[in-house]
Amino acid sequence: MRTPDELRELVNGYLAELALSPDLHGQAESVRYAIESPGKRVRPVICLATAEAAGVEPEQALPAAASLELVHCFSLVHDDLPALDDDEERRGQPSTWKRFGEAIGILAGDALLAEAFRLALSYPTPQVGRELARATLGMIGGQYLDVTGTAPDQETLHELKTGCLFAASVGLALWVADVPEAAQAPWRAFGDELGLLFQIVDDILDGDGYVETHGADGARRLADEAADRARARLGEVDADTSVLAGIVDDLAVRTA
Amino acid sequence: MRTPDELRELVNGYLAELALSPDLHGQAESVRYAIESPGKRVRPVICLATAEAAGVEPEQALPAAASLELVHCFSLVHDDLPALDDDEERRGQPSTWKRFGEAIGILAGDALLAEAFRLALSYPTPQVGRELARATLGMIGGQYLDVTGTAPDQETLHELKTGCLFAASVGLALWVADVPEAAQAPWRAFGDELGLLFQIVDDILDGDGYVETHGADGARRLADEAADRARARLGEVDADTSVLAGIVDDLAVRTA
Repeated sequence: MRTPDELRELVNGYLAELALSPDLHGQAESVRYAIESPGKRVRPVICLATAEAAGVEPEQALPAAASLELVHCFSLVHDDLPALDDDEERRGQPSTWKRFGEAIGILAGDALLAEAFRLALSYPTPQVGRELARATLGMIGGQYLDVTGTAPDQETLHELKTGCLFAASVGLALWVADVPEAAQAPWRAFGDELGLLFQIVDDILDGDGYVETHGADGARRLADEAADRARARLGEVDADTSVLAGIVDDLAVRTA
Repeated sequence: MRTPDELRELVNGYLAELALSPDLHGQAESVRYAIESPGKRVRPVICLATAEAAGVEPEQALPAAASLELVHCFSLVHDDLPALDDDEERRGQPSTWKRFGEAIGILAGDALLAEAFRLALSYPTPQVGRELARATLGMIGGQYLDVTGTAPDQETLHELKTGCLFAASVGLALWVADVPEAAQAPWRAFGDELGLLFQIVDDILDGDGYVETHGADGARRLADEAADRARARLGEVDADTSVLAGIVDDLAVRTA
């Protein structure tokens, strides 16, 4: 079994070598800039670790894992635009629109999304792409609720903005590994808890969201409970899920 | 065989009833606004007519046809944004960003693209979605060349901005109708000529592009030649392509 660091290396290597559509012409530069912005690659690593736990070589899941990272990048590039969050910086560098201008920034997000589907569609089964489309639509809906301040509650907002793509990080790997639908439930329940854990810890690090509604101690307790449930779900899976359990531990105590 | 008008009705009915992802929440309103903006539905009609000529009921090709129209809508919604063409009107109505604000306009384009892939992915074969992804990337590359004024020549620009999605209108139908790859060549050559024809006539109506480079008479001659070649390609196909031939005639003499 590969460690999360080894899987992250695999993802970074794959993304660095990724052949973009030649039809993008000069637009490819901004797309590559957004992809290579230094990130933790949490989603693709979860995807590869799930695929390996489910019995296939992580390499087989690389296009699916990269598609998740590209959708994540797409959302960051568009969220940073002046009309949305108006962020000039991302991960310590100029955001894509700040670096290339607004027009190219919009097109870069569009291209990232289309490239993500190209990757997800490289599998014989359309299920990989179907789940990516569902997750992307959820993320967009979450962004809408956030921008307009119309979320019915915090849980719905987080589930859409963050949870969907985390759940898909597990889900895409299940399709790649050909896990029968009837056996997917505990894996998927694990993915849901992982997304929740990530979001609560995010709020703890930022001092908002769950910290505002539940206090610092309350948010910490919620995070620990989500981590416990994630581990319990893994226990229901008949496979070596030790690497995924390690990812839960890391996410629970991460400081960045 | 259904007439183009009957096929257009079919498309409009399908789009009007199209169930968007419930996860979009309030974002769905702007997506629907963009979809229902009155359009000629040229691409989906070509897709349905090709599918019927290739031997399947047009109804079977409706999700593919709608996915093409949604990608077309996505491109219009983003092209109209202030950072790109800054168009406040589209088809005689406020453009999507003008009606809903820039943030929602950006998200509407994103959602249209994701919904398009959801539709293309409803088929058992991933080929439908793969061809849609390729065409979308070409369109985005074309928009980049246009925005930055870096197109190597007019042909490349048109082929990417317009040609890709026209070619895909034929191509998607071929996958839906299960036309073997070895038999697709004349159909695809037809699609290429159709895209070129559409673009030249567009320039004739707008008085730019091919009219600037070839004069009004020269552009008319180029259009007639493209129409002739499109008809010749149809003649190479062993099928009743009379409706498609009618579409060529209509596109050659259209006035809007």
